[in-house]
Amino acid sequence: MKFESLRKECYEANMELPKLGLVIYTFGNVSCIDRKAGVFAIKPSGVDYEKLTPEDIVIVGLDGKVADGKLRPSSDTNTHLELYKAFPSIGGIVHTHSTFAVSWAQAARAVPLYGTTHADHLAADIPCTEFMADDRIRNDYETETGLQIIDCFEKHNLNAAEIPMALVAGHGPFTWGATAAKAVYHARVLEELCKMAFVTECVNPKVQRLKDSLIQKHYNRKHGKDAYYGQN
Amino acid sequence: MKFESLRKECYEANMELPKLGLVIYTFGNVSCIDRKAGVFAIKPSGVDYEKLTPEDIVIVGLDGKVADGKLRPSSDTNTHLELYKAFPSIGGIVHTHSTFAVSWAQAARAVPLYGTTHADHLAADIPCTEFMADDRIRNDYETETGLQIIDCFEKHNLNAAEIPMALVAGHGPFTWGATAAKAVYHARVLEELCKMAFVTECVNPKVQRLKDSLIQKHYNRKHGKDAYYGQN
Amino acid sequence: MKFESLRKECYEANMELPKLGLVIYTFGNVSCIDRKAGVFAIKPSGVDYEKLTPEDIVIVGLDGKVADGKLRPSSDTNTHLELYKAFPSIGGIVHTHSTFAVSWAQAARAVPLYGTTHADHLAADIPCTEFMADDRIRNDYETETGLQIIDCFEKHNLNAAEIPMALVAGHGPFTWGATAAKAVYHARVLEELCKMAFVTECVNPKVQRLKDSLIQKHYNRKHGKDAYYGQN
Amino acid sequence: MKFESLRKECYEANMELPKLGLVIYTFGNVSCIDRKAGVFAIKPSGVDYEKLTPEDIVIVGLDGKVADGKLRPSSDTNTHLELYKAFPSIGGIVHTHSTFAVSWAQAARAVPLYGTTHADHLAADIPCTEFMADDRIRNDYETETGLQIIDCFEKHNLNAAEIPMALVAGHGPFTWGATAAKAVYHARVLEELCKMAFVTECVNPKVQRLKDSLIQKHYNRKHGKDAYYGQN
Repeated sequence: MKFESLRKECYEANMELPKLGLVIYTFGNVSCIDRKAGVFAIKPSGVDYEKLTPEDIVIVGLDGKVADGKLRPSSDTNTHLELYKAFPSIGGIVHTHSTFAVSWAQAARAVPLYGTTHADHLAADIPCTEFMADDRIRNDYETETGLQIIDCFEKHNLNAAEIPMALVAGHGPFTWGATAAKAVYHARVLEELCKMAFVTECVNPKVQRLKDSLIQKHYNRKHGKDAYYGQN
Repeated sequence: MKFESLRKECYEANMELPKLGLVIYTFGNVSCIDRKAGVFAIKPSGVDYEKLTPEDIVIVGLDGKVADGKLRPSSDTNTHLELYKAFPSIGGIVHTHSTFAVSWAQAARAVPLYGTTHADHLAADIPCTEFMADDRIRNDYETETGLQIIDCFEKHNLNAAEIPMALVAGHGPFTWGATAAKAVYHARVLEELCKMAFVTECVNPKVQRLKDSLIQKHYNRKHGKDAYYGQN
Repeated sequence: MKFESLRKECYEANMELPKLGLVIYTFGNVSCIDRKAGVFAIKPSGVDYEKLTPEDIVIVGLDGKVADGKLRPSSDTNTHLELYKAFPSIGGIVHTHSTFAVSWAQAARAVPLYGTTHADHLAADIPCTEFMADDRIRNDYETETGLQIIDCFEKHNLNAAEIPMALVAGHGPFTWGATAAKAVYHARVLEELCKMAFVTECVNPKVQRLKDSLIQKHYNRKHGKDAYYGQN
Repeated sequence: MKFESLRKECYEANMELPKLGLVIYTFGNVSCIDRKAGVFAIKPSGVDYEKLTPEDIVIVGLDGKVADGKLRPSSDTNTHLELYKAFPSIGGIVHTHSTFAVSWAQAARAVPLYGTTHADHLAADIPCTEFMADDRIRNDYETETGLQIIDCFEKHNLNAAEIPMALVAGHGPFTWGATAAKAVYHARVLEELCKMAFVTECVNPKVQRLKDSLIQKHYNRKHGKDAYYGQN
């Protein structure tokens, strides 16, 4: 099997999605990139997780064409491709239709930063793109989906290395990270943050965003230059 | 065992319902039709899923009478019968009392199309029938339940081959598909769409229906003549 | 072991509660009565389900005194006793602190009959008692809890043989049935009805109670003299 | 292994958190104290529950310094330390980011005592601290988190031996008890109380706090000098 370790990393990360309750049926996909080889591995389109094997994983070049594999890659492949090109620090990408993240995307709202669980992972609201303009829908739709996210990050001056997730309005979440496993971790965390924000607003409709001093404290204790969380 | 493959298809589809969390106790039933033989297979009435066997599945003719089997068929048999007669493209039907689909049915609201998860499966709101008139309740109630759905589709000019699900006001969901397994798939998707729509409206009470250009794009990439989702 | 079959019935029904997600820790109890012998079997107080054995089940006489068993019976024993004395048709009783049923009890609202899932089981709103008066709290509290339910049924002219469940305001649910297993079934159904009614009201704050013709149709097809649901 | 029984108590209590659905990934920690030895055992920082072993548990002195162990202790260690010093009756402490408890903390609301499930465990609303002042955030943050809780208890004249839980505004829950296992029990109960209070307010936005006579009755039947719940 060519690209064996890349395929296995991709396969194992994909298999985490149903275990974590983030997908039903074929509603999701994970990819991971080998930047030296100039290819990324991605789930084939519409294949059940129960039947998926490492061999089924498709290898795609940075020209968007299949470099190795017998199956058609995920229909979302071009979205992954745009994100890899625009965000050089990332090594893996996840797309799901998890319940609470999709609900916020459908509501077309950025998820306000209400607490330290959120600030432990990112020091900003979870961004939500605008709805795609009709002329862009008529172009290559999946490429444009990636560009919607990239435009959103540019417009609001966001750093993809620090903000590993976005909601696409009316659609759902994309998350990423240094590896496919980290991207899956962010997909699970995002779902939890979206559920917590939903309950929080029900319990207190006048809730305020967490103040910046608390946000910075929590973000930096895990991610700052003097981080002291974990064993490293 | 007569009608062995039809019974097994029906049995296996029924057994998916409790695994998918769509039914508790005996709250649901699946059927599948052999249009050449002019019969359909359906769950027996009130039998626990834990005790159900392929032999227990009841074979019913298109006259509504039991063609083979020792047990009484589901009390909802006549609803299935009407749907098979009115919707010639369908091969399987599911009825459940799943939590969020029943809640929307009790609320007597069509489920608005808020996002691409929904548009991936149907390009319309999930229809909800009117409440049944009292004179129809006094007729054969289960036959009339089927007719409520059929009336709703005729009144709103809906195509059952494209819209594989409906809510019966005050009651619950019916879903269908080319096979019993596809009908079960639609029952699971419906439950998810109903949960997402509930959370979406809580998070944004002024949420708008997804615009038509996005609906058509997503529906057609899976179901249009140039569909490019999956391996076929 | 004396009263072996009664103890086993009680034990098995108790063990269903954690499996069905209706209790955590020791938050619940099931009893069942042998009316000929004039005793009922009930869970011991504060014993973990994981450690419970049939031998631990306590046998209590209709005078409220322990007839057999080494452990102290459930602190709710006198509530069960009052219900057995007032409702001669019932053979088993369940008390839980299941999430949605407790929430409606805390909200001190009867659960409106919004759909056929509810009407399949009872043709009335799920009754909720008044809050207990202070002088009754100072009496034997558990006896008075039973009397609260009985008073509620008398005041609203309800029949415990037809309405197998009640909420005690500010406290939680009690359910019953011909056997302990039936009482457990009603506890599970009650929790589902309470969750559905919660979601229904969120989805449609102006939802109407189901009309009586539909209620009677569904109740009678399962419980009326011409019932045609199930195999009997 | 030094402090073997303390490490094992701590390890086993930590392992309960993911089983009870109270934590995902590394979002939580449990400690337990040996007051005679003047040390407490606590989870190491950022270690996955799947990989945790009793040997990994860190032993910390009452000066806040590691007394034994190869790993860095939880980043929340100083919060635990302050609570042990201020609340002499407690033997174990739990911190989680469980969904509903965090949501109430983010909403910055004390959880009102709405029912007997709550009163069975504490006779007061579940306290919620104020948001930490900026000058305290700049101090040792985790020490100050403990002091926020202690200040809240002093200000409202609360007894930590009777009220085994608190929410830290914008952050999440801390619970405690005579042992680590009791503290875990309180963490699970807190999550349930928070979910019930959320649903209760949705079902009845004008719900009243439970009256004091019912609160005292339930609290005292489990915890008063004449308690009659359980086998002791």
